[in-house]
Amino acid sequence: MYPYDLSGRNKYYTLYENLRGDILRGKIKAGEKLPGKRTLAKELGVSVVTVQTAYDQLLAEGYINSKERSGYFVCPVEVGLRERPSAPPLQEVEKPEYSADFVSGSPPAKLFPFASWAKLMREVLSDCGEHLLERVPCAGDDELKSAISDYLYRARGISVDPRLIVVGAGAEHLYGVIVQLIGRDKLYAVENPCYRKIYQAYSLNGARCAFMPVGEDGADPTAAAAQGAAVFHVSPAHQFPTGAVMPAGARARLINLAEKRGGYIVEDDYDSEFRLFGKPLQNMYALCPDRVIYINTFSKTLAPSMRMGYMVLPPELYKRYKELFGHNSSAVPLFEQKTLARMMAGGTFERHINRLKNYYRGVREALTEKLKAFDCPHYCRDSGGGLHFTAKFSSAPSDEFIKEKALAVGINLKCLSDYLLAPCAGFEKTAVINYSGITLEAAESLDLSRIK
Amino acid sequence: MYPYDLSGRNKYYTLYENLRGDILRGKIKAGEKLPGKRTLAKELGVSVVTVQTAYDQLLAEGYINSKERSGYFVCPVEVGLRERPSAPPLQEVEKPEYSADFVSGSPPAKLFPFASWAKLMREVLSDCGEHLLERVPCAGDDELKSAISDYLYRARGISVDPRLIVVGAGAEHLYGVIVQLIGRDKLYAVENPCYRKIYQAYSLNGARCAFMPVGEDGADPTAAAAQGAAVFHVSPAHQFPTGAVMPAGARARLINLAEKRGGYIVEDDYDSEFRLFGKPLQNMYALCPDRVIYINTFSKTLAPSMRMGYMVLPPELYKRYKELFGHNSSAVPLFEQKTLARMMAGGTFERHINRLKNYYRGVREALTEKLKAFDCPHYCRDSGGGLHFTAKFSSAPSDEFIKEKALAVGINLKCLSDYLLAPCAGFEKTAVINYSGITLEAAESLDLSRIK
Repeated sequence: MYPYDLSGRNKYYTLYENLRGDILRGKIKAGEKLPGKRTLAKELGVSVVTVQTAYDQLLAEGYINSKERSGYFVCPVEVGLRERPSAPPLQEVEKPEYSADFVSGSPPAKLFPFASWAKLMREVLSDCGEHLLERVPCAGDDELKSAISDYLYRARGISVDPRLIVVGAGAEHLYGVIVQLIGRDKLYAVENPCYRKIYQAYSLNGARCAFMPVGEDGADPTAAAAQGAAVFHVSPAHQFPTGAVMPAGARARLINLAEKRGGYIVEDDYDSEFRLFGKPLQNMYALCPDRVIYINTFSKTLAPSMRMGYMVLPPELYKRYKELFGHNSSAVPLFEQKTLARMMAGGTFERHINRLKNYYRGVREALTEKLKAFDCPHYCRDSGGGLHFTAKFSSAPSDEFIKEKALAVGINLKCLSDYLLAPCAGFEKTAVINYSGITLEAAESLDLSRIK
Repeated sequence: MYPYDLSGRNKYYTLYENLRGDILRGKIKAGEKLPGKRTLAKELGVSVVTVQTAYDQLLAEGYINSKERSGYFVCPVEVGLRERPSAPPLQEVEKPEYSADFVSGSPPAKLFPFASWAKLMREVLSDCGEHLLERVPCAGDDELKSAISDYLYRARGISVDPRLIVVGAGAEHLYGVIVQLIGRDKLYAVENPCYRKIYQAYSLNGARCAFMPVGEDGADPTAAAAQGAAVFHVSPAHQFPTGAVMPAGARARLINLAEKRGGYIVEDDYDSEFRLFGKPLQNMYALCPDRVIYINTFSKTLAPSMRMGYMVLPPELYKRYKELFGHNSSAVPLFEQKTLARMMAGGTFERHINRLKNYYRGVREALTEKLKAFDCPHYCRDSGGGLHFTAKFSSAPSDEFIKEKALAVGINLKCLSDYLLAPCAGFEKTAVINYSGITLEAAESLDLSRIK
């Protein structure tokens, strides 16, 4: 009656699986009585304990129930339900190799101070020991927050109470937190064009978005404000992809607008460290810490695998943050936070930034030299900031033409129009030269002659 | 006219700051012409280069503009805007110390195999080297996903294509991703009572929620289904806080319901490793991998600071995941992912779980022994699973009374009613004994006699 082969090692489990399968397939029906333990044990040639253990498991999972003094009965488990084959294999897309990739760039790994970093990691491991297992407050480790505050003072000249800093697992994560803090009833204005990830993070988090066209003076909030926008996401130091810098007057107007609306400005300072010539520009945060959320990451300065970012919240929002998330733990491992804290406090971080700046200055010069061969003297707003500039090819027939020409010699390129979130005129025939992932060797050996 | 003290080290910056401050305060008005570089340099006793650098910075930031052959003019920067004092210090609340905390428990640190963990970390550091800086695919590192898949097969008996696994920075993060994948137009059903964090994660991510009252057979979806729920978040193996186990029949009905709705089940297996007696219960995922999202974390098994969780997605949702997030990087550092992968592949993880299980079995026995002294023989559904059970104090006048009595002897305790998300009868006078953070010594030395 129960023709199960229990010759394997795990007899009780095999018996359990056989019985479960038969119940699920309807071979043993609801209400049916299972044989007594002794009877089944004898039939299958196993010990009573084996049968008992299998019955216990079925009992625990609700496939059978036991009635005192009368035995085990099969529970109703809807027929039609069966164990299904596992999913078919998924197709993964191979990434193409480029001779130069001006689209998805990460800092060249060889520039990362790996030896110092590994040394700090070993130090943290032996110094902190089991403390590394402790729960980390949601906003981040105090040591790291202090190091960030000190760094912001030294490098950007802004005084920040470390307790207003929130460390998170990358910028996208923090954008989501911002929506949760400010709410979905507000309209969020994002720059157009901009990093699609920013817009995507807001809309995936359920925020409604309006667009701010980016002109010479950076984002123009007029239209978005007319639609009712109250939160303005801007990168005033060096807009991506246009490279526009927002002048002091426009900054002041935007702050006054946000104040009037009871809203906020998200100041995305994603590549402000890389002002290659002159001092970094003054932050909007310094002008109005009650209305400006300052946000920055380490993926441009350190490595994209180092998924850490931080934001400085206005006190009112920080209060709300504590209420909502105070009981959660930080999403960033303490180990990485401690290592980075030491890297910042010990000066390794700033030395690394300076080295990167020198390096990128060389890359930039090599690239602009190459581009001189073309008739595109207008590096739109080459403000000396950031890791990208734009090059206008006025005589090209179309954006597609520019990209195809480049691709033909192995160059991966996007145009300003590729970063448009909504149609907007004035961004035609302009390539975005994002050189953050370009090595000096690649820049110098770049052969643009074949493009012509 | 410009009475600035530039005796400090950074002359140009001090000059820039002074000029900027005077422009912001309206002392130097819009349209006003700044003195010539040579004139100002002479007046202040500094070099022309110093003045030039300060002017360049003001120019870059848009405080002034230059008109060819006529000099520098102040731009309109709205008055009323000034640099504000930094925010007032924030109040942080001190955490009280308890003799026993049955509310917020983490596994006792001394049980963590720290030496093996640290050894693996050092190994990963020297083996992987600079590869640790590389971009990690959004869904996680392949090595870790394979290790998780193997573990799920060995420990839970389920076959999972590693490519369907998504590694994330903790469960809350993954709940948010689920909302982004399935959308906010669906109604999400959560268990009542349950961990407030689950409900909070859904609602903070903009999902509308309905409630499923938890009874003997786990979550009852009837009312939520009538309201139109299509996504059902359940912990069928061992519900928190009730301890209910969902029997096979109820699981099958729920799966059929989700299928009919074109919806999904989120199977939260948060403490399934800790079935202290008998084998873990079979997963819902195994029954219907097309409709069930399996989710689990390492915060109960390893340490809450190890913010890592994972989910197994139905192929359809994984496809969407790749579309939405394929271009992002993983939110979990590669270093932690590699270390955990080795911990799982090398058997350290399972040995650790077994050690924890033995340990907690002792804690549980010590606690039930102590509780025998009270008139509360009903450890509701003490299914042998998980790290908590409930104890009903029928003769207590109220839930508040139970908690106050406990607190008087230093015991932090919550009742089932504290975890209710919406009013629901039948959960009165029942303490939740969550012993995940209780050491054996604390359990054995617990003096309950003074409570009586």
